[in-house]
Amino acid sequence: MKFEVTILGSSSATPIYTRHPTAQVLNIRERLFLIDCGEGTQMQMMRYKIKMQRISHIFISHLHGDHYLGLMGMISTMHLQGRINELHLYGQQDLMDVLEMQLRLSNTILRYNLIFHAVRHYVSSLIFEDEDILVRSIVLNHRIPCTGFLFREKQKPRKLLINKMQQYNIPFIYFNKIKNGEDYEDDYGNIIKNDELTVPSPPPRSYAFCSDTIYDENILNDVRAVDLLYHEATFLHDMEDRARATYHTTSLQAAELAKKAEVKKLLIGHFSARYKNLALLLDEAKSVFQNTELALEGLRFAV
Amino acid sequence: MKFEVTILGSSSATPIYTRHPTAQVLNIRERLFLIDCGEGTQMQMMRYKIKMQRISHIFISHLHGDHYLGLMGMISTMHLQGRINELHLYGQQDLMDVLEMQLRLSNTILRYNLIFHAVRHYVSSLIFEDEDILVRSIVLNHRIPCTGFLFREKQKPRKLLINKMQQYNIPFIYFNKIKNGEDYEDDYGNIIKNDELTVPSPPPRSYAFCSDTIYDENILNDVRAVDLLYHEATFLHDMEDRARATYHTTSLQAAELAKKAEVKKLLIGHFSARYKNLALLLDEAKSVFQNTELALEGLRFAV
Repeated sequence: MKFEVTILGSSSATPIYTRHPTAQVLNIRERLFLIDCGEGTQMQMMRYKIKMQRISHIFISHLHGDHYLGLMGMISTMHLQGRINELHLYGQQDLMDVLEMQLRLSNTILRYNLIFHAVRHYVSSLIFEDEDILVRSIVLNHRIPCTGFLFREKQKPRKLLINKMQQYNIPFIYFNKIKNGEDYEDDYGNIIKNDELTVPSPPPRSYAFCSDTIYDENILNDVRAVDLLYHEATFLHDMEDRARATYHTTSLQAAELAKKAEVKKLLIGHFSARYKNLALLLDEAKSVFQNTELALEGLRFAV
Repeated sequence: MKFEVTILGSSSATPIYTRHPTAQVLNIRERLFLIDCGEGTQMQMMRYKIKMQRISHIFISHLHGDHYLGLMGMISTMHLQGRINELHLYGQQDLMDVLEMQLRLSNTILRYNLIFHAVRHYVSSLIFEDEDILVRSIVLNHRIPCTGFLFREKQKPRKLLINKMQQYNIPFIYFNKIKNGEDYEDDYGNIIKNDELTVPSPPPRSYAFCSDTIYDENILNDVRAVDLLYHEATFLHDMEDRARATYHTTSLQAAELAKKAEVKKLLIGHFSARYKNLALLLDEAKSVFQNTELALEGLRFAV
């Protein structure tokens, strides 16, 4: 089952040519979730052949422009292209005020239902759930209210071994119970252990998105042992003071966090415009946490 | 003296890849004026090597997203890059409400002075003047309040013929009067006609920007005989009904307007995303007004 993230932009506040502001598309079982939507995201989607109308849910971390200024244009384009499917939007309460003002001034009545879900910035919460996944907010520590997002697959029931069902002639109505771990007792009172009838489903995968934030170990519990952690790494560690002053993280710190949280893989992004050569940021992170990659736009990472 | 316009985008509301929404930079004697600022304009400036910080005045025609959604990002980038020079912004009153809300929510205190000038949409007015040029608003006829802009050089005084100044031994203090057309009377009462002492300066050049609008001959007086008229041409004329319904203009109509206004040259833009082949729009306009060009992004036109 697909669970992958495509990077559409990973520049920090000032874009430089070929580096766009933050936006990512998460594909979970062919369902598309957009995370942040910096200026130009709709053009980036065209470039990387992601169908905008397939996006059902959008998550915005905070109201610095490089994380949401592409949203109004995308909402408008979805409308102009005839969208009728509802769109769910998650973000800080004030986000909807900006959009409503812009819709009103452009005299736009959306053809589809835009459903806004206010995300509280001061407490980690379950903000989305369907049959396959859970999304929780992560409290980040930035200059303005800001949340990260944790996408986690639900633990699927165990898988039935069909040949065993046939061998023991187990009626269909018992299948769900067995999937959920129960043993089977046949008409003669013989107990067949669940282990013999099923195999476990693959462990649930998880992706955590953390941008923007100062280095803050308070998020360790939220992101512990995730398969893939995206964490901002705006500066090299020689600019730690600047990182602290602007509530950002250094590449070294992002790697330390990944190590302490025992994540499987780290993806760094939100690169300051001052770095043309991103290899420096990557090398610094790898010196602490080897399994790190740069969140370069256009790249796709399996979770 | 330079007077040229660079097209940064000329797509209508829905951008398609390689066609960005409306934005143009006017260079008048090395002073840069930005006209409209669709999403991605700051990236387009980088692409076409236009220095954002050199822009002193921004003119926004109306509050449909494809004409202003790049503004907040640009204002923010100017700030982050350390701008201190003031920036003048011209647009509908409500534009500043949107910007102020976004600045407040992102907790941004600009380092430079952003001076807003509200443009009235119901009357053509002089909105800017310096020693070289005048800018007037043009009342356009669109679904929401919308103005075009007319940039016109001031008529310069006549040029002195230096050899004549020497021949008649004319004192310096008379130069300004002679430049302004007066004859010269020497100490013996001889009148030397101004025609013999000066030549006229080149005629003032003018550029009119008209987007978006239904076909409306009310603008003829505003744009009469301009050197270069940019006029929207969203549709081919077989979609005249759709153009009327959406308050847009067809390519044929734009050309008819150019012809009736006796402009020197026509530039068409604001192309609907439905047209991959823009040559159709160009051919249609040329069938009525030969001296027409497509406002393709990256192109630069001398006025």
